[in-house]
Amino acid sequence: MSERTSKRAVLVEPNQPVEIWDHPVPPAQSGEVVVRVLMSGVCGTDVHFWHGEVDLPGPLVLGHEGIGAIEELGEGVTTDFAGAPLSIGDRIYWVPLSPCHHCHYCTVEKDLSLCENGMAELFRDAKQPPSACYSELSWLPAGMPFYRIPDDTPSEAVIALGCAMPTMLQGMDRLGGIDINQTVVVQGCGPVGLAATLLAKLSGARQIIVIGAPEKRLAVAQSFGATDIINMEDVTSEEERVQRVLDLTQGRGAEVVIEAAGVVSAFGEGLKIVAKNGRYLVVGLWSAPGTIAVEPRYLNNNNLRIIGTALYQPEHLYRAIQVAQKHHHEFPLAEAVTHRYSLEDSQQALEAVARLETVKAVIVPSL
Amino acid sequence: MSERTSKRAVLVEPNQPVEIWDHPVPPAQSGEVVVRVLMSGVCGTDVHFWHGEVDLPGPLVLGHEGIGAIEELGEGVTTDFAGAPLSIGDRIYWVPLSPCHHCHYCTVEKDLSLCENGMAELFRDAKQPPSACYSELSWLPAGMPFYRIPDDTPSEAVIALGCAMPTMLQGMDRLGGIDINQTVVVQGCGPVGLAATLLAKLSGARQIIVIGAPEKRLAVAQSFGATDIINMEDVTSEEERVQRVLDLTQGRGAEVVIEAAGVVSAFGEGLKIVAKNGRYLVVGLWSAPGTIAVEPRYLNNNNLRIIGTALYQPEHLYRAIQVAQKHHHEFPLAEAVTHRYSLEDSQQALEAVARLETVKAVIVPSL
Amino acid sequence: MSERTSKRAVLVEPNQPVEIWDHPVPPAQSGEVVVRVLMSGVCGTDVHFWHGEVDLPGPLVLGHEGIGAIEELGEGVTTDFAGAPLSIGDRIYWVPLSPCHHCHYCTVEKDLSLCENGMAELFRDAKQPPSACYSELSWLPAGMPFYRIPDDTPSEAVIALGCAMPTMLQGMDRLGGIDINQTVVVQGCGPVGLAATLLAKLSGARQIIVIGAPEKRLAVAQSFGATDIINMEDVTSEEERVQRVLDLTQGRGAEVVIEAAGVVSAFGEGLKIVAKNGRYLVVGLWSAPGTIAVEPRYLNNNNLRIIGTALYQPEHLYRAIQVAQKHHHEFPLAEAVTHRYSLEDSQQALEAVARLETVKAVIVPSL
Amino acid sequence: MSERTSKRAVLVEPNQPVEIWDHPVPPAQSGEVVVRVLMSGVCGTDVHFWHGEVDLPGPLVLGHEGIGAIEELGEGVTTDFAGAPLSIGDRIYWVPLSPCHHCHYCTVEKDLSLCENGMAELFRDAKQPPSACYSELSWLPAGMPFYRIPDDTPSEAVIALGCAMPTMLQGMDRLGGIDINQTVVVQGCGPVGLAATLLAKLSGARQIIVIGAPEKRLAVAQSFGATDIINMEDVTSEEERVQRVLDLTQGRGAEVVIEAAGVVSAFGEGLKIVAKNGRYLVVGLWSAPGTIAVEPRYLNNNNLRIIGTALYQPEHLYRAIQVAQKHHHEFPLAEAVTHRYSLEDSQQALEAVARLETVKAVIVPSL
Repeated sequence: MSERTSKRAVLVEPNQPVEIWDHPVPPAQSGEVVVRVLMSGVCGTDVHFWHGEVDLPGPLVLGHEGIGAIEELGEGVTTDFAGAPLSIGDRIYWVPLSPCHHCHYCTVEKDLSLCENGMAELFRDAKQPPSACYSELSWLPAGMPFYRIPDDTPSEAVIALGCAMPTMLQGMDRLGGIDINQTVVVQGCGPVGLAATLLAKLSGARQIIVIGAPEKRLAVAQSFGATDIINMEDVTSEEERVQRVLDLTQGRGAEVVIEAAGVVSAFGEGLKIVAKNGRYLVVGLWSAPGTIAVEPRYLNNNNLRIIGTALYQPEHLYRAIQVAQKHHHEFPLAEAVTHRYSLEDSQQALEAVARLETVKAVIVPSL
Repeated sequence: MSERTSKRAVLVEPNQPVEIWDHPVPPAQSGEVVVRVLMSGVCGTDVHFWHGEVDLPGPLVLGHEGIGAIEELGEGVTTDFAGAPLSIGDRIYWVPLSPCHHCHYCTVEKDLSLCENGMAELFRDAKQPPSACYSELSWLPAGMPFYRIPDDTPSEAVIALGCAMPTMLQGMDRLGGIDINQTVVVQGCGPVGLAATLLAKLSGARQIIVIGAPEKRLAVAQSFGATDIINMEDVTSEEERVQRVLDLTQGRGAEVVIEAAGVVSAFGEGLKIVAKNGRYLVVGLWSAPGTIAVEPRYLNNNNLRIIGTALYQPEHLYRAIQVAQKHHHEFPLAEAVTHRYSLEDSQQALEAVARLETVKAVIVPSL
Repeated sequence: MSERTSKRAVLVEPNQPVEIWDHPVPPAQSGEVVVRVLMSGVCGTDVHFWHGEVDLPGPLVLGHEGIGAIEELGEGVTTDFAGAPLSIGDRIYWVPLSPCHHCHYCTVEKDLSLCENGMAELFRDAKQPPSACYSELSWLPAGMPFYRIPDDTPSEAVIALGCAMPTMLQGMDRLGGIDINQTVVVQGCGPVGLAATLLAKLSGARQIIVIGAPEKRLAVAQSFGATDIINMEDVTSEEERVQRVLDLTQGRGAEVVIEAAGVVSAFGEGLKIVAKNGRYLVVGLWSAPGTIAVEPRYLNNNNLRIIGTALYQPEHLYRAIQVAQKHHHEFPLAEAVTHRYSLEDSQQALEAVARLETVKAVIVPSL
Repeated sequence: MSERTSKRAVLVEPNQPVEIWDHPVPPAQSGEVVVRVLMSGVCGTDVHFWHGEVDLPGPLVLGHEGIGAIEELGEGVTTDFAGAPLSIGDRIYWVPLSPCHHCHYCTVEKDLSLCENGMAELFRDAKQPPSACYSELSWLPAGMPFYRIPDDTPSEAVIALGCAMPTMLQGMDRLGGIDINQTVVVQGCGPVGLAATLLAKLSGARQIIVIGAPEKRLAVAQSFGATDIINMEDVTSEEERVQRVLDLTQGRGAEVVIEAAGVVSAFGEGLKIVAKNGRYLVVGLWSAPGTIAVEPRYLNNNNLRIIGTALYQPEHLYRAIQVAQKHHHEFPLAEAVTHRYSLEDSQQALEAVARLETVKAVIVPSL
């Protein structure tokens, strides 16, 4: 029998088209899982990688939002990471981040999103079996968390907002939740902003004001629960947007503001629209360098809280599936997947996402 | 019988010497209390008022840290605001902030420190009976919280850190406390920094690094529990101070940083010394205008929390007395009162505080 | 001009029909408000009073869930207790509980629901102007919190679940909220259970299992968000009900259980259906004496939390109005008011509630 | 070279003397560690095992509080579980509980103390290399957490309260900490009660009332920070003890009560001495079956919280070392180790603990 191989989309050089390579994927050893990729989300971070905004050690298989069907279970793997029994062919959702359970952040802080070793698998040699998912087959090493997707839940609903959903679920935890009846502003309506909007809605927020563009994404925000929209293409000055928010909130600003815009200026704007005693969650600036002038006294005297949150932890991936399962009938989650590409067309996918043409693009290797 | 009057120190014009006025104090009406002032703390904020850094509506009786003996109880006043029975002559501690229990912040947010009407009494006409305490007699209107000081607790121990102690007690609440074994940096060693140091010690912090000057105050910080001192007169560059903190914390920074320095640059320095997943309490910048450049991505990616806190609420005044009662034997609280002035010498008191000559100065009207 | 009087329903003796008395209501003095009662909720607690299950000091005007139109504003009353401006004729919602802001619980614990003096007004001499609301006119003394009802919000929607809604809102605060995707069991489907169901729904609970009877109330629970119903008239054994819950929760029990049944046996049943690491909110047993055997080790070893909560605080009354305003279109809140009675028919109202014939009964003095 | 073996103390049959067996300990494989045991704590739970109060699958090597020197590091083991580098001979602290990171509780709830598989290693076949520590050598499988003990920290200080210290550290987390100035009652003065006393002291509790016996242990409680002692040998009636606590707490009871008594009746007594709005942590009843009658209304109406907590998580073991390191000079931790036994005398150790003769007994295999 000839050796099993897997095509994969490899970023060899920044700003050059990704290449399709084909290399072996050996049998699953003890604790490992091999999956046939069904759908791979194209994330804005992939575009940042392509644009060379993150230093890479060498050629990189892209893709960190993967849904696949189990092809092979290594010895001892009988359940997913929440204890659910597994069979060949089951759909699972995984991400190539693996907490080491050995470092200060994993075991003392118990904040697995800060694991010092968790990203190692993301940057594997591109000739090795990839745990990344722009690939026909992916290989999950022992200890890499994954969760079974229930049969009643479409893959599109799970992947609709990609890693933005678990990221926002961690954000909600770090924020301390949104109370029933609170007022919320979401800055931005990309996947992170849409996830924020949906989670604010599910939390019972009284008012959810979304500031963003373009119209197409704002329409999705409305379908996810936004009560008020401020279209940045229409309301182009910060001053005017701030005034709109104050007008909508009895002059006090919002009790919770969520930065999901990914641009530094949003941070300054956010501080102007958060109410006294309010909370400001900063989640969208992971790959946005730059500084902005702030007046620290303002934080001090208004009893503000600013809460930063990056990445997520395994439980948030699990809960993202739960959100999709519970709510995909009520909210048009699956419809957020607006573009599908074959593995060979990965480059076109990246370019479409870079042009903000999509709500969510996915790669479907079987196309 | 001639009418009862009270001398009081009045700030008539910014940057001019305070004047001693003498005006009547009428009998206590229903719900009111008249006290004979025993000791009045001189706060840095009084200096800010004197320097004209806060706009005032007119001549102002200074003093918001008052200990007095009850002279007269209005009808219906039988207990303090924690239900303790009262007698003529009892010592009480009060502050001329009165939550209105009627505004959005008092009743909906239940954050009395943001009461929209709470400061009205602070700015009373200086000819009226003053609720402020640079005065022989002070008059507490109905609803102004005050607490009885237990007999076993010296007035000096209560007033040692003045309003900095209740302010830091609210800060600790908003921070969510300091866990046993956490590492803490306190920026500043004025009353707020000293209160932060003591409360960190009482909370079981593993390491309390105090950054400040002059030596005299750092020595008090050590007597209050500081485990490491960084004297800003010796370590004059921010870069070097940051490195010292990293060296003392296994390269990770402190799990909790408390800004009690009152200068804007401290905010930028603080962000460099707070550990990933750490918390930064900003408490000292109430009257410090100015901006500083920050990189929002840094907050985002390090899972930081910044928590602002201003002023305090009645319960924190009560708890400040409890701290003094419980700990004045163990820690040299009363010794922090290094300077005493007569009411007539109020101006000298302000000037001494402005020159940072004191740890804590008080006005004793009976001198 | 003849003196203004108000008819009122007075409980003179337990288990005897309430009487209609008529006595003067004098002009509103400083800080006071006189309202014309529009609607008064009939609460199960009124029935407990009638049945003599609470010792009363004398004849009692019933009614602690009042909506009225402002008839007269005393001097100085220009806003409600959240700072909203007031005019004659505005509808307000109030409750005759007045925190004293003077006792240990009000100011040190800041838990106004435990105020040592807060219930005094509830037990006023029945010949005096009543702050209770089975009355044509009610009189609110200075300091008794009330809130304006927005024009877009029907009175029925506000009063639909009566004091059960603010009680459950405090319960949610004390519980620490329900996270998105959690599983909840509500024991009981009277007003407290229905409020719990609605608030769980608004909080994004994944699964809301309501155990109760009769069918009519369970139907309301379903309209408020219950995902599963266990009708106690059908499933009569505790053992079987416990099994049903385990079957619905993958054998683990519910992450949150809310006791709103008002019978002691529910407590034992609740402990059997709460998951490890779960939380059990006990809110319905305020007037239910009796003991039950528990195994403390079970709490210990399963990392359970039991949280008791009684009554509520002013902010919860305010938030109850917000819930009605925001959600009365989406959920049939107003339809929960199934029975209306004139003041003269107060006795019939009590009897109907005692027979569990109603979902919610109200007294409308203008009938 | 002859094969390496290790003597170990094996419980073969309940209520029969433990036997000393000697079997091989093979080389450390990848991820594994072999340690030479320096000190093994004798825990009350070992006595419960010996008494047959827990069903065992077969002969059992006892001991779950182990300090050892690293004898051999398997491939890939370069740090402890907090990232500290390791060398042969380093002292480490471990416990034979291994979170699986695969089950519902580990990954969804992230409560590793409830791991469904974590105790498997505790019940290994007694002929296999033991991860338990009544042994000359112990063997730690891959994934079993352990932490390096700093050189400045005596082993006795770490093991003084054995697993009671990490258990109480988890208890403090679940409790939500003790605030500065709160009043605390600790029921019991065995290792759990002593750990509770010390942690309450470190948290800044105002008053720490310890109820227990015998005198010898109460004296240790006083050296750990107890402010008041109620000796159960003197104050033998529950009623009288309850009255003492009320007398010491202004009639309100304690804001925090910690059950560390291990007897069911303590639970009923605890409910009588917890203040309104107070919290009751139940930590000592892990192996104490039995029921007691409670009045659920009491929990409801007094706004009480009851918090159960069992076992602990890896971070708590780490923090236990930190507590010892920081505080062993200030508090006589090491002196709590009152009895030392050779491995061969393990049976005598169990019997001494069963007779409550010891504060803490340890087995020192080198004796």
